[in-house]
Amino acid sequence: MSIVTAYAAPREAAPLEKTVIDRRELGPHDVLIDIAFAGICHSDIHTVRGDWGPQQYPLAPGHEITGTVAAVGSEVTRHVVGDRVGVGCLVNSCGECRECVRGQEQFCRQGAVGTYGAVDRDGSITQGGYSEQVVVTEAFVLRIPDALPLDAAAPLLCAGITTYSPLRHWRVGPGTRVAVVGLGGLGHMGVQIAHALGAEVTVLSQTLSKKDDGLRLGADQYRATSDPTTFRELRSSFDVILNTVSAAVDLRSYLGLLDVDGTMVCVGAPAEPLALTVGSLIGGRRSIAGSNIGGIRETQEMLDFCAENGIVAEIEVIRAAEINTAYERVLASDVRYRFVIDASTFAE
Amino acid sequence: MSIVTAYAAPREAAPLEKTVIDRRELGPHDVLIDIAFAGICHSDIHTVRGDWGPQQYPLAPGHEITGTVAAVGSEVTRHVVGDRVGVGCLVNSCGECRECVRGQEQFCRQGAVGTYGAVDRDGSITQGGYSEQVVVTEAFVLRIPDALPLDAAAPLLCAGITTYSPLRHWRVGPGTRVAVVGLGGLGHMGVQIAHALGAEVTVLSQTLSKKDDGLRLGADQYRATSDPTTFRELRSSFDVILNTVSAAVDLRSYLGLLDVDGTMVCVGAPAEPLALTVGSLIGGRRSIAGSNIGGIRETQEMLDFCAENGIVAEIEVIRAAEINTAYERVLASDVRYRFVIDASTFAE
Repeated sequence: MSIVTAYAAPREAAPLEKTVIDRRELGPHDVLIDIAFAGICHSDIHTVRGDWGPQQYPLAPGHEITGTVAAVGSEVTRHVVGDRVGVGCLVNSCGECRECVRGQEQFCRQGAVGTYGAVDRDGSITQGGYSEQVVVTEAFVLRIPDALPLDAAAPLLCAGITTYSPLRHWRVGPGTRVAVVGLGGLGHMGVQIAHALGAEVTVLSQTLSKKDDGLRLGADQYRATSDPTTFRELRSSFDVILNTVSAAVDLRSYLGLLDVDGTMVCVGAPAEPLALTVGSLIGGRRSIAGSNIGGIRETQEMLDFCAENGIVAEIEVIRAAEINTAYERVLASDVRYRFVIDASTFAE
Repeated sequence: MSIVTAYAAPREAAPLEKTVIDRRELGPHDVLIDIAFAGICHSDIHTVRGDWGPQQYPLAPGHEITGTVAAVGSEVTRHVVGDRVGVGCLVNSCGECRECVRGQEQFCRQGAVGTYGAVDRDGSITQGGYSEQVVVTEAFVLRIPDALPLDAAAPLLCAGITTYSPLRHWRVGPGTRVAVVGLGGLGHMGVQIAHALGAEVTVLSQTLSKKDDGLRLGADQYRATSDPTTFRELRSSFDVILNTVSAAVDLRSYLGLLDVDGTMVCVGAPAEPLALTVGSLIGGRRSIAGSNIGGIRETQEMLDFCAENGIVAEIEVIRAAEINTAYERVLASDVRYRFVIDASTFAE
């Protein structure tokens, strides 16, 4: 067991503070990572505040982790000391069920182990990336291609794969008409990835305030959802709608934007149920679906794809002491588009 | 113009009565059909009663039609006098849009023409199959294979294709675990077709009252949705749920029955919106979708499939004078599983 500096919530709804957490001794298949950067995901805030259920505290969040390999266990074959690596939302799974074998560890039938606040397979509670080091079993450690800077690559580990996976699963490519709902941490990745896949991309955002950004990131069109003409004029004009917004939306309006055989994929879950008019689905054999991050193999594929296509997150790098202020800004949607913590400042 | 005997609603919410309706003169591409049988679909009742919007009266419903060709227009190539034929829910479409070209006339961008109560491309209002004869453009006239009796084949034209199309679209085959919700006119076709496609079929019905029928029709398992253990024990165990029930259901319970990547397809639309918990979709990349009858090419494929596999509807043949009584029994779910009107009795 080693002790490392981290930023953690000491109890529910409390601000994060500097503390120390335990990291396990390196097992034969483990990789010790010197963390360089950790992205701030909206989920971090919900989780540490207890919005999604009770947690064990202190809890260090963070599942958008990049760094370099500091040491490897005796049987590690995939990574060597000095490798540039990343860790996303998952750090373990059973490895044997249908989903794990298919590379869909996020749907592991035994329950995949989340990077923080989860019970690991050894019974310990996982601690996330807001810390100086992390120990992860090698199968869940991703390779960060040299073309990607470690700071701007960090958000790819969650925001990147969360958007890449559904875009690939629903076969987005040249000719596909994709709408990305919301231009935040997830949406700004979705736009870039859909554009790089060859799709025709429209951003649907509440206002036009980020229009310039949207177009620069690769959108062909940027429309305000607060403008009722948007829903009229874009009726039946998308094959895929990637909904990155966790707030409740008027499903019927959005489903009306889908062409025949179109699918609306939600990657964020509103707290309250949405009203679904089944007739909106029947009329054009439309679907509404959900998608949850992606598997490890697909996450590596996404990192390689981003490297090949020059895609990174747009980030604001902060010091550890600024985490709580950053949380308030995330909640106020005041970030373009992701905060990334410089891990060298955890010890300050 | 010719005048034929029919059973029609004289006005909204009125019982059907014997009357006469006009049939157009045979155009060069038209087929005149001597109707032998017409199935009674729940939609007939909703439509003539004005539940789905105002209609022009008198209105003769019926879109599950079988019969024989009595005459053909000068340029008809697909059918000859004496052919055993059928007509389903559609009698026309633009023929040129993306959907028509793909054989998905039900999604015609100009609006497909329904078999009754719709504005045809010549401006007239279509009249359905509760009549002695019908004139239909040849492209919308199906061939009834010799192996299928005209009476029990009639319901295939709507109930058959409505269940066949989504089962095929969502690739149901050997190894697929399919749940059919509801064992009525649609459900009893869905069970037979899914079984013939090689799937493992479970019926989910309110009670076990039709269990023997369900198993005889090909279900491997028959479970009552009124029993809460059903939802617990069948959790995550289906790839496809075919929901044939138009009443509101608790979506969350049903979505919980889907395995990873599973889809719940609805072919009936409840009047009220359903409460959709998006998290139920995200957890296993599940989908909820709608499906609407099928195209003409696929309807022919379904008829051929049913002939090859000995599939027909289970029917109760009635005389025209019994239509209004039959309507009451349909509304009371008191039919196993489809009423079919003997068209020779319209003139009685």
